[in-house]
Amino acid sequence: MSIQLQIEATRGSARAGTLITPHGEVETPVFMPVGTLASVKGVSQDVLEELGVQILLSNTYHLYLRPGIETVRQMGGLHRFMSWDRAMLTDSGGFQVFSLNDLRKVSEEGVAFRSHLDGSPHFLSPEKAMEIQIGLGADIIMAFDECTEYPADAQRARDSMELTLRWGARCKKYFEAHKQEVPWARTESAELRSAGRPRAAVPTRAGATQALFGIVQGGMDAALRHESAERTIDVGFPGYAIGGLSVGEPREVTRDIVLSTLEHLPANQPRYLMGVGTPEEIAQYAQSGVDMMDCVLPTRAARHGLLFTSEGKVSIKQARYAQDESALDPACDCRVCQRYSRAYLRHLYASNELLAQVLNTVHNLHFYLATMRSVRVWIRAGHATGTVTT
Amino acid sequence: MSIQLQIEATRGSARAGTLITPHGEVETPVFMPVGTLASVKGVSQDVLEELGVQILLSNTYHLYLRPGIETVRQMGGLHRFMSWDRAMLTDSGGFQVFSLNDLRKVSEEGVAFRSHLDGSPHFLSPEKAMEIQIGLGADIIMAFDECTEYPADAQRARDSMELTLRWGARCKKYFEAHKQEVPWARTESAELRSAGRPRAAVPTRAGATQALFGIVQGGMDAALRHESAERTIDVGFPGYAIGGLSVGEPREVTRDIVLSTLEHLPANQPRYLMGVGTPEEIAQYAQSGVDMMDCVLPTRAARHGLLFTSEGKVSIKQARYAQDESALDPACDCRVCQRYSRAYLRHLYASNELLAQVLNTVHNLHFYLATMRSVRVWIRAGHATGTVTT
Repeated sequence: MSIQLQIEATRGSARAGTLITPHGEVETPVFMPVGTLASVKGVSQDVLEELGVQILLSNTYHLYLRPGIETVRQMGGLHRFMSWDRAMLTDSGGFQVFSLNDLRKVSEEGVAFRSHLDGSPHFLSPEKAMEIQIGLGADIIMAFDECTEYPADAQRARDSMELTLRWGARCKKYFEAHKQEVPWARTESAELRSAGRPRAAVPTRAGATQALFGIVQGGMDAALRHESAERTIDVGFPGYAIGGLSVGEPREVTRDIVLSTLEHLPANQPRYLMGVGTPEEIAQYAQSGVDMMDCVLPTRAARHGLLFTSEGKVSIKQARYAQDESALDPACDCRVCQRYSRAYLRHLYASNELLAQVLNTVHNLHFYLATMRSVRVWIRAGHATGTVTT
Repeated sequence: MSIQLQIEATRGSARAGTLITPHGEVETPVFMPVGTLASVKGVSQDVLEELGVQILLSNTYHLYLRPGIETVRQMGGLHRFMSWDRAMLTDSGGFQVFSLNDLRKVSEEGVAFRSHLDGSPHFLSPEKAMEIQIGLGADIIMAFDECTEYPADAQRARDSMELTLRWGARCKKYFEAHKQEVPWARTESAELRSAGRPRAAVPTRAGATQALFGIVQGGMDAALRHESAERTIDVGFPGYAIGGLSVGEPREVTRDIVLSTLEHLPANQPRYLMGVGTPEEIAQYAQSGVDMMDCVLPTRAARHGLLFTSEGKVSIKQARYAQDESALDPACDCRVCQRYSRAYLRHLYASNELLAQVLNTVHNLHFYLATMRSVRVWIRAGHATGTVTT
């Protein structure tokens, strides 16, 4: 067995439950912070635990380049490498390669691309993406897809969707043949605890394997999305993602495509909306029936001094906060708002102090996680009325 | 009353005790981490507390430029501004201005200099340095001195020492006339707890004032240092620092000057050796009778991937650590060594991840603080023999 979603409450299209993974349970709907290079920038793993992070996302493309898959595999997989006992998900690298633009070339076989670091040539195929993600050993891994660019005409969107379907089937075939090669299979708890080694992350369930999710594409055409969903389900995966959104289209289009696609995904399996969005959007999508989301927004915005609060966005660099003794968000119970003033946070940011990035990230992650906690409460409240405020 | 040193054990020239300050007690000998801009780069205040930091150093020159003294004063002083309840020390700005070289001009009145940030002109005098440090409100503040360059001929070293003596007397005069202006005097515990404000740092003792330390100069001439010590003591301060070292001279010279100067400092008052040194050096100086030390080495080296361990220095960027599963220092009980492998730390550093700087700094600070803890144990062990190993 790989993963299992227990749906424990529903409200309209929304559902709250527990996603059981080889490395612990995840309360859904869930927001997954992004730890691109096996680290959420500036935040140590014990702080992520304290924040209540139950599942982390890491990026295959970046880890493939640094430190390289063989290193992570030798270290026993991502969990052990970064000392993270809880659940993890890796993307396939497809979206990152898609973002390289001038540095990539797509064929039926896969994608040839050049590293953004040193220009060295590389090739990712469905099989290679599976091999890499098995080596990384996240609990949930993603099929290698083509993220259709925006805008795309009807033929281009269909061709791209068909390619993603063929790649998805190849991913499944490779994964089923090789899933026992996940590094957990080689590690024994006793071995991990040997002398001189820091504490190690071991799977919570013996014999567990990874779960491979399929990805729905189809551009901004609801009918194509419908077809993509049905044919991806025909291939058969333990969970389904909606990909290819937030690529430049208007927010209303994103929303329409998400809502129409959700209707065609299995009710008893996890639904993952990739790379979305603002606090308002993640709350809305969770209320619409999405179980999992990830986005770089809270962490990236934090590093640029943009903070999410119960009173709206705060650009902490502004001079108006230079002598503001109040907490960043008086309604927030995160360790940053409990201890520091806006004046201090503004000083750290204006002085380019490392601690600015650390504290801002902790706050924004707390805000996103608290937003999802309140959605879960809202769903489980069942018969109550009203909407979630963030 | 400002501060009080209780000497509780001696061993040879060394002494262990408790330094009682307006913001809590400090076990001596003590290493003071440097938080230049009211932040130890990358490390949040709760982690500093967990590390056992009892006194922090902050730099007047940098705070004077950013965020500016008026802002800190308005916020109630450094403790409240950065939310640090424990003891603090500020330097006078003299050493930093000395380091500006081409941007400064020294006269009897003080030092004209240009900001390293924007080239704007400024002037620091003994009186101005006191006004600023009273506004910052650290528990211990330093006289404005001239740090004699190295090498310096006999006349230059004497002239510089005499200038520092005249400036020291001016500092004391200004401080005694204005010490009631420390921001603590204006703050009431009840006021600080008002709505919307994060928790505030208040003095632990009502009516307490800051302590102004004098600084011994005299270049690398032991006789001049002796004279400087005696005449600084004649001015009269509650504690004395040895300044003007680690300015390029050989380490043996530093050591000779420190040891010979220590003999001339009062036995019942704190002795502070400024800006020194490696773990071995801070242990040696503490064993020689120094009570307080500070140095940027542990924090700056950490940000460059240079880590101090019980087995010597480790340059974590080296490829040899890429698949090293062992802890950075298996003998270390810091949160970094308890959790992460050398391979992970190497990856973070090689990938330029923010977390590298955070974790490296936490480890190095722990190592320095543990070094001083072991010296204190060694002193209190009294009749035992042997030396401290770090």
